[in-house]
Amino acid sequence: MRLVRFRWGEEIFYGVLAGEMIRPLAKPPFEGLSQMEEEIPLAQVVLLAPCDPSKIVALGLNYRDHAQEFGSPLPDEPLLFIKPGTAVIGPDADIVYPKMSRRVDFEAELAVVMGRAARRVTEAAAWDYILGYTAINDVTARDLQKKDGQFTRSKSFDTFAPLGPWIETEIPNPDNLTVEAYLNGERRQHSSTSNLVFGVAYLVSFISGIMTLLPGDVIATGTPSGVGPMRPGDIVEIRVEGIGTLRNRVAAEEGE
Amino acid sequence: MRLVRFRWGEEIFYGVLAGEMIRPLAKPPFEGLSQMEEEIPLAQVVLLAPCDPSKIVALGLNYRDHAQEFGSPLPDEPLLFIKPGTAVIGPDADIVYPKMSRRVDFEAELAVVMGRAARRVTEAAAWDYILGYTAINDVTARDLQKKDGQFTRSKSFDTFAPLGPWIETEIPNPDNLTVEAYLNGERRQHSSTSNLVFGVAYLVSFISGIMTLLPGDVIATGTPSGVGPMRPGDIVEIRVEGIGTLRNRVAAEEGE
Repeated sequence: MRLVRFRWGEEIFYGVLAGEMIRPLAKPPFEGLSQMEEEIPLAQVVLLAPCDPSKIVALGLNYRDHAQEFGSPLPDEPLLFIKPGTAVIGPDADIVYPKMSRRVDFEAELAVVMGRAARRVTEAAAWDYILGYTAINDVTARDLQKKDGQFTRSKSFDTFAPLGPWIETEIPNPDNLTVEAYLNGERRQHSSTSNLVFGVAYLVSFISGIMTLLPGDVIATGTPSGVGPMRPGDIVEIRVEGIGTLRNRVAAEEGE
Repeated sequence: MRLVRFRWGEEIFYGVLAGEMIRPLAKPPFEGLSQMEEEIPLAQVVLLAPCDPSKIVALGLNYRDHAQEFGSPLPDEPLLFIKPGTAVIGPDADIVYPKMSRRVDFEAELAVVMGRAARRVTEAAAWDYILGYTAINDVTARDLQKKDGQFTRSKSFDTFAPLGPWIETEIPNPDNLTVEAYLNGERRQHSSTSNLVFGVAYLVSFISGIMTLLPGDVIATGTPSGVGPMRPGDIVEIRVEGIGTLRNRVAAEEGE
């Protein structure tokens, strides 16, 4: 099932996408999946990020090849950072290139969307807390990341967390999905979540042992090798097998 | 004016504290300060954290003396990290000492509470976006902070952001307040926000140039020298001049 979130007129709804038609949900999907009677054509709505996370808990160096690319040893525990909810944008929205940076990179990632509040969940029980999966672009101002040491500033700019296009709830094995990034139509990242250092269920268990994950919170599982810079005017696409394509344009920051 | 948030019976309210009596607010203080008719004695309520932030944007190495204590050079720009809203607890709630850590420290800080959404705000305009000030204990698992390099895990455990006891809206000069920590009644930190590397208005401007600050979001302005470890059973108090005392007990983590 594909769960979408969208603006229709002045209102925001969640819904179920089947083909080119959306059935709106009476409530957010975390509270149940009862569908309304009406159907709305996909072409008549603006798709938003498929959830509105209170936080994105993201992973550093969680692909064997990306760690090698940066000359970093593989971590023996997950290395966490947080992207704020204010960074989230939806499909086809613009990534704004901040004037503060001279080097802004794409990072293709599988995103896990929580369906229920999770606190100290075991690895075996983790699956029951996951609503589904989507794609995320963990946009990063690489120059500021290197300067700060801490990842927060470089990954928290408004628009630096494109998310979508929808939540796919039926993914039999999230630990074996192709993850790709395309820049202006050219493939730049290509790996599989089978190369994750720490897999999906382990991450849910580990993170929930530290901080409560709320419904709609997102885990960004890390990026493989091949990250690279974007420029204003570029089109970047993140593709995750079994989910779809998250497409965004890069725009220059306006104003002084 | 002292703004409180409290549980009364099954419900949560914001209110104005005057002496020992609370006047509940009809709406959250970000939407106006119209007070209800009734008065509730402070003794009959449970004080909660005075706001429910979507994020806490916190500062590393923002006191000259604390940077020296860690042998770190002073940053030439603010060094940011994020503590999630799920870490927040209120006055008198327990800080839970996680089994994952062997060294959990207190860090006394002045907290700035945003009153309005702030995006790319100038330093001169910053004051108009601030609702008021409170105290925060930026609890930190020092061993995990050193191991990870990234600050996120060590500062994001549930209960690691005691906040309160209330928001004081009338602070003529937040850049000249005494900040102290007491452990079991003994003073361990003692400095003034006049020693901040980056002051309050500059921080609001700098952070809002990166990420939108939402109403109720908190800026934790950094901690002075004298941070130190706590143990289960300890009582820790953070005192900020003109605001009051935030008191919490440390409890051992239960369960396996």
